[in-house]
Amino acid sequence: MKTVLLTGFEPFNKEPINPAWETVRALDGWGEVGFRVVARQLPCVFGDANAAMAALIDELHPALVIAVGQAGGRVDLSVERVAINVDDAPIKDNAEQQLVDVPIVRGGPAAYFSTLPIKAIVAALRAAGLPASVSQTAGTFVCNHVFYGLMHAVAGRDGVKAGFIHIPYLPEQAARHPGAASMSLEQMIEGIRVAIRTALASDRDAVAVGGATH
Amino acid sequence: MKTVLLTGFEPFNKEPINPAWETVRALDGWGEVGFRVVARQLPCVFGDANAAMAALIDELHPALVIAVGQAGGRVDLSVERVAINVDDAPIKDNAEQQLVDVPIVRGGPAAYFSTLPIKAIVAALRAAGLPASVSQTAGTFVCNHVFYGLMHAVAGRDGVKAGFIHIPYLPEQAARHPGAASMSLEQMIEGIRVAIRTALASDRDAVAVGGATH
Amino acid sequence: MKTVLLTGFEPFNKEPINPAWETVRALDGWGEVGFRVVARQLPCVFGDANAAMAALIDELHPALVIAVGQAGGRVDLSVERVAINVDDAPIKDNAEQQLVDVPIVRGGPAAYFSTLPIKAIVAALRAAGLPASVSQTAGTFVCNHVFYGLMHAVAGRDGVKAGFIHIPYLPEQAARHPGAASMSLEQMIEGIRVAIRTALASDRDAVAVGGATH
Amino acid sequence: MKTVLLTGFEPFNKEPINPAWETVRALDGWGEVGFRVVARQLPCVFGDANAAMAALIDELHPALVIAVGQAGGRVDLSVERVAINVDDAPIKDNAEQQLVDVPIVRGGPAAYFSTLPIKAIVAALRAAGLPASVSQTAGTFVCNHVFYGLMHAVAGRDGVKAGFIHIPYLPEQAARHPGAASMSLEQMIEGIRVAIRTALASDRDAVAVGGATH
Repeated sequence: MKTVLLTGFEPFNKEPINPAWETVRALDGWGEVGFRVVARQLPCVFGDANAAMAALIDELHPALVIAVGQAGGRVDLSVERVAINVDDAPIKDNAEQQLVDVPIVRGGPAAYFSTLPIKAIVAALRAAGLPASVSQTAGTFVCNHVFYGLMHAVAGRDGVKAGFIHIPYLPEQAARHPGAASMSLEQMIEGIRVAIRTALASDRDAVAVGGATH
Repeated sequence: MKTVLLTGFEPFNKEPINPAWETVRALDGWGEVGFRVVARQLPCVFGDANAAMAALIDELHPALVIAVGQAGGRVDLSVERVAINVDDAPIKDNAEQQLVDVPIVRGGPAAYFSTLPIKAIVAALRAAGLPASVSQTAGTFVCNHVFYGLMHAVAGRDGVKAGFIHIPYLPEQAARHPGAASMSLEQMIEGIRVAIRTALASDRDAVAVGGATH
Repeated sequence: MKTVLLTGFEPFNKEPINPAWETVRALDGWGEVGFRVVARQLPCVFGDANAAMAALIDELHPALVIAVGQAGGRVDLSVERVAINVDDAPIKDNAEQQLVDVPIVRGGPAAYFSTLPIKAIVAALRAAGLPASVSQTAGTFVCNHVFYGLMHAVAGRDGVKAGFIHIPYLPEQAARHPGAASMSLEQMIEGIRVAIRTALASDRDAVAVGGATH
Repeated sequence: MKTVLLTGFEPFNKEPINPAWETVRALDGWGEVGFRVVARQLPCVFGDANAAMAALIDELHPALVIAVGQAGGRVDLSVERVAINVDDAPIKDNAEQQLVDVPIVRGGPAAYFSTLPIKAIVAALRAAGLPASVSQTAGTFVCNHVFYGLMHAVAGRDGVKAGFIHIPYLPEQAARHPGAASMSLEQMIEGIRVAIRTALASDRDAVAVGGATH
């Protein structure tokens, strides 16, 4: 029985709710033949979030880890390609820290690529009628920080797949942010289910264009 | 017992489905104390659509008419403020017509304002957790054409409220249009319910900012 | 000798400069065979702006009037199609007024269409290498207010062409508004020259698509 | 006398012109006390572009290299933060190649950070009235390919500063792409001058926020 670890953040940036946490908590305990999901919340705090992530990986020995984060303003489920080794925070985190141009892991590699089959996941999401795309940047705030911390933590562990998926605002959030897109909770939950099934079923990624000219 | 007429278009622009028709058909026959909904499909054809609309108004004597249309790419339920007396089609309609700079009603007024309480509807939608905004333009294609035709048809009839609401792509459509926002069918349906209740309950519109600097 | 009246607003919304005024002042006194430009500044104040516009028309008897306004965030020279009879201000004007859903001219028509050859102007601008498009809405703030007031003032006067062109931020403004597009002053000035020549040379508008599906 | 190497690409994606090449060619031979610019064109071809870049570095021993590329649709001078080790081409290059998910340098690091003082450059550009921002992704096409190839080529060379700046369409290009932003050639040229002066004058980067939440 494989363990699938899903993480979602606590609310941040004055939002009362975080769609990432709402999504992953709904999947806690869910499973199909051969795997079961454990969902955990992460603090939206530089440093603490990665300490929590590392502890979860040590505790749970997951075969698959998908960290999920809110990307307010994005229109779809965006499967991140790469985490970069820098914090450059445009807003404060939940501990009132605003790190600027600080490496996440001193001496660590400049970046880690997701080991999820990102193209296969995007294709499966679209086939399921769910808007999705590959994203070339996870930003430089706590989402990228955790994505990088996650990849660093599993870098030495054979056979662990890991990556990050950004999700839009919930409709109730977008109702307070005119002009911002949203997605229903049901679709976000179904999207993460599709991503898990695809990641567990894929030995190698699909060959499909997912890049950007700039 | 008041009749509420909802209209939605057949699919257009190579889409296999039209969220407007899916939304209004789901509400056909729905009602609460004092009103009942009749939902009808309109052709996405200049001229024919307005002939159908005028016939429906003659047949049904509705107290409230809301025409609903797809606005692929928009992020929310957008309640239109004004219909203008011109067709200028960037694409062909379903009868392969592409009218350019032709008045909808020769000699008609340059524009009609919606007689829905548009500010009250936007406020009610947001209060219900549904992303919504006032829109200052319904475009110049068949949606604006029907909006204008509707307002022209009810212009002489006392006590009939009428207007137009644009809705986003469904998720299954946005899955084929990377970069486009979407909204779930359930939320669109709930949104039109909220709009109907608000329109029937409001004697005058709320005073609330809904404009744009440009 | 025909008089061409250009108007531009004083700065508003905390900007130290207004590209519309910078553009039209640079053209004051400019002319070619048969016409000469008079450029005047308008206050960014509901009511006062239209009183000033009406006085200018009475004083100058222009054959052509182009009101120019800043549209911060837009990417190109946008030639407005229609002015609507409502003020709905998302921000305060320069006299600290914030009118909401007030008609510009009580009892006036719901809208006026530009009498500029808007399609011909857009085509000429693009042919000159200047980004341009038709816009279906001039908003509901002082720009639309003046556009409506202008069209109302010339409505009874034979042979006067009039309309409104929105222009982007200047680069120095966009440098303070990350994410906003801009255009150089030289190109804005050249764009208005092209618009004037095209308006004076066109007996009727070009037939060209300039509409929007929504 | 230091050599500053500027590179710009030949036109691609059916454009007749490339603003990057127009910008850098205008600066060929320009200099101030202590430095002189050499501008060279690169083919928009995977592989060939990096071979050309490596040869230029061997030939010229530049103290500073700024590769410049067109980012059609972007609004400002965007100073890239990071190059990633993957080609994933949404369109074909000029040799009709469309590489998908191929490493640029097999066995190379996942990413290289720019060694330009990117925050100081953005601050200097804005102070000069030029719209600018830090960009978190250079895409996955030939621009990112060359950015990565450049950083890889100079990785072992002490004291060489290098990086990549994306620039918008020229106005004449945007005139054919309605909805796209643009910038005048004069401002692009001035922007690269400012970037060169700032890069040569800065021993370390400024501490300033330039990140993104996602």
